[in-house]
Amino acid sequence: MTETIDTLVTHAHLFSMQGQGVGYIHDGAVAIYQGRIVAIGSTSDLEARFQITETIDASGCAVLPGLIDAHMHTPWAVVRGVAQDVSNWMQMALAPYSRHITPEAALAGTRLNVLEAIKAGTTTTVDFAKPNPGWAEVFEGAGVRARLTPTINAMPPGGMAGWKVGDIYPLDDDVGQGDIDTAMAFVSDWHCAADGRITVMLGPQAPDMISGDQLLQIKRLAEREGLMIHMHVAQGDREINQMIKRFGKRTPQYLDEIGYLDDQLLAVHLTEATDAETVLIAHSGARMALCSGSIGIIDGIVPPARVFREAGGLVGLGSDQAPGNNCNNIFNEMKLTALFNKIKARDPEVMPAWEVLRMATIEGAQAIGLGDEIGSLEAGKQADLILIDLSAPNLTPAMDTPIRTIVPNLVYAGSGHEVKTVMVAGQILMRDRQVLTMDETVVQAEAQRQAEAVSLRVAADPVHKKMALLTAMEAGQL
Amino acid sequence: MTETIDTLVTHAHLFSMQGQGVGYIHDGAVAIYQGRIVAIGSTSDLEARFQITETIDASGCAVLPGLIDAHMHTPWAVVRGVAQDVSNWMQMALAPYSRHITPEAALAGTRLNVLEAIKAGTTTTVDFAKPNPGWAEVFEGAGVRARLTPTINAMPPGGMAGWKVGDIYPLDDDVGQGDIDTAMAFVSDWHCAADGRITVMLGPQAPDMISGDQLLQIKRLAEREGLMIHMHVAQGDREINQMIKRFGKRTPQYLDEIGYLDDQLLAVHLTEATDAETVLIAHSGARMALCSGSIGIIDGIVPPARVFREAGGLVGLGSDQAPGNNCNNIFNEMKLTALFNKIKARDPEVMPAWEVLRMATIEGAQAIGLGDEIGSLEAGKQADLILIDLSAPNLTPAMDTPIRTIVPNLVYAGSGHEVKTVMVAGQILMRDRQVLTMDETVVQAEAQRQAEAVSLRVAADPVHKKMALLTAMEAGQL
Repeated sequence: MTETIDTLVTHAHLFSMQGQGVGYIHDGAVAIYQGRIVAIGSTSDLEARFQITETIDASGCAVLPGLIDAHMHTPWAVVRGVAQDVSNWMQMALAPYSRHITPEAALAGTRLNVLEAIKAGTTTTVDFAKPNPGWAEVFEGAGVRARLTPTINAMPPGGMAGWKVGDIYPLDDDVGQGDIDTAMAFVSDWHCAADGRITVMLGPQAPDMISGDQLLQIKRLAEREGLMIHMHVAQGDREINQMIKRFGKRTPQYLDEIGYLDDQLLAVHLTEATDAETVLIAHSGARMALCSGSIGIIDGIVPPARVFREAGGLVGLGSDQAPGNNCNNIFNEMKLTALFNKIKARDPEVMPAWEVLRMATIEGAQAIGLGDEIGSLEAGKQADLILIDLSAPNLTPAMDTPIRTIVPNLVYAGSGHEVKTVMVAGQILMRDRQVLTMDETVVQAEAQRQAEAVSLRVAADPVHKKMALLTAMEAGQL
Repeated sequence: MTETIDTLVTHAHLFSMQGQGVGYIHDGAVAIYQGRIVAIGSTSDLEARFQITETIDASGCAVLPGLIDAHMHTPWAVVRGVAQDVSNWMQMALAPYSRHITPEAALAGTRLNVLEAIKAGTTTTVDFAKPNPGWAEVFEGAGVRARLTPTINAMPPGGMAGWKVGDIYPLDDDVGQGDIDTAMAFVSDWHCAADGRITVMLGPQAPDMISGDQLLQIKRLAEREGLMIHMHVAQGDREINQMIKRFGKRTPQYLDEIGYLDDQLLAVHLTEATDAETVLIAHSGARMALCSGSIGIIDGIVPPARVFREAGGLVGLGSDQAPGNNCNNIFNEMKLTALFNKIKARDPEVMPAWEVLRMATIEGAQAIGLGDEIGSLEAGKQADLILIDLSAPNLTPAMDTPIRTIVPNLVYAGSGHEVKTVMVAGQILMRDRQVLTMDETVVQAEAQRQAEAVSLRVAADPVHKKMALLTAMEAGQL
């Protein structure tokens, strides 16, 4: 008797990401039932094996696991483009906007970023943000997979823009405790929600932004609830400077001494980690979120992902924040990761296309703790996948012999706009570039409206006069 | 009496690139008559001033001068993606394909590349290729502007794949003279053709690929005909190695001594030029074509464009060759140029968005010797311009105060797919993403067909067994 399935994706250049490479299958197919993959194989085999409800013809397309964005800050999308080309970007460019982003503006940013991500083939987002009402609902409604991380810090609100670069920040334990309590309430409400699509991590923003006691309290809570911890680590000279002033040591040593380095930790950035510190963190089992684009723009630095991986660590790719990246697109991150690391090593063989594609899929899934559920196309896993139109001029031609050119072209020539169809847990979120779960026009217009309101509030606030980019504005360079 | 014009582009975020910055005009307009710009200004002023035949509403769009690609090799697009992630890319990856690219395959590559370029907002191409029959006609028919450079070298055809890395190449003066004669015939046929849209440069491929006598012969011909010389200079350790073995000196010193460094020269790459050599070349008045993407991929190197510009030199951006770049897209080159140079300097303030936008427009135009005709939107210049849809999620929002975010977002978040409409010399080549002067489906299918034929010929040629990427293919990484 023939087994019935919901969907068969057929005639694909199938990159399953199984095994140690890219797991290519010629004229491949993916069989999906109740949101999960039940088989992959050749189209003819699977067509013969199943009774099919809907067929999705992927002729001329590459089919890949949905891409994984291991670190984002979606609300910031509402002020895309305010924090590049400057030094001390956080204080001199971003902070003046921070106090003027209302909850409504933040939500508009989240919607915009989720839309942007879907259109570029991202199916799983690890988001880090203040848990405003409605935040989780955006992901739930859009149908994407998300690991949501409510920000926890002990920083008095609205302060940073007024502080002097280099001064030690004030910390307020009441603020920290409030954020911890809010986060735990969020865990109750949202961890494993939406049929498991939405899960939660605990997110101390950074070790310099909270007391050691509260940092350890978060660790105990994470252990009790079986949650990962998602934290910025060694993210810049600003942080290292604060850590030395406050604790007398650099971040990795501090975290090692308090017992924070283990496989529960998703460590974001490692911008300022030395090679020895990087190896220490990798050997602990902690995972790394690598944000090549944003760290390249805001710091001019290539984080030590190559050292981390060579020490056996798992690395996922993150698009971080739109004010200084300025896009949230894992194709962009794949390309920049490969190129930046070649340049850092002055070696074109470093970080070939297939390696960064693994970081964007299976290795990224493992890094964020979802390696058993997503990241590759194989029986039993979630049906999170994307179709990429290889007839786009920049992806043409697709050659198969004596070498196959599809993966290098996806990484080095792809932009994300070639993604045609996006599926999460068997549900189609975008078909032929039309997003079905969000109204693109409404999302765009609301983001624009909210951004204009934010920018007017910033312009009316004297703190904006410290912004580094005002000079460029006055010189006619913007 | 009101003056009549052909076209008024209205309600744009207009970036004229006049002056020293980006020349922004709010609610701007461009008036066009007989292929040239007759005025720019505010929409209301220009609407009152002219009798308009056709209005193009650019509401919600940025309008910029068409982008300039200062260095391409269009035929190579037919083997996109065969030469990245390897050392000695030219001999170990590209050369096995070279002998199997028929004139028809080369033409299919040129058509594909011109199509790709138009769709990413490139209006002027400086192409470097063997002048196969039909090559120039592609640019003529597509309606783009081109500076075509027929390749001149003295290398026996089909050789490189069989040579050992490091061995000095054989040179054949008869081959060199044949290429010179062919190039001069091409000059007669095509220089200033198609109402001046098509012009010609002389292109000795590189100083290591031709005798000194023939290099000087080309210089005299260029002076006589008033042509620029377009040549690869210090393009890699391969070239420097050949120069030292053949002439006993590095390329810049050699060119300086034979009188080759002056403002007639467009020097491509400078990959291996030291800072002192870079300054020498810049001070001579020679111009630089910077190919950030391709040199990043094939060499893992950031060429010394910053030093060149600081020495007063003009730099244009080039997308080079698709086998190892792997796209031909000036948005890609702008982003990579800004980011690579920040990383090289470990300084986020280096090469801000507006500077790379100038390299892609007015500075690029000056670098290729067309600064009086294109590169900015101003009265008297050619009407080469592009409309970019700012409602794309990755370009949303567009903020205007206290700083304007459009230019940084175009550079760091734009991909080229947001280009909506493209005009060259007043003729619309693409409207709402539909290319009007080429049949996209036919161009794509023909490139695919030719590429498959090339790849089968390569697979049947034993020389392919030396290809570096075969190992990756066998390991399931492609």
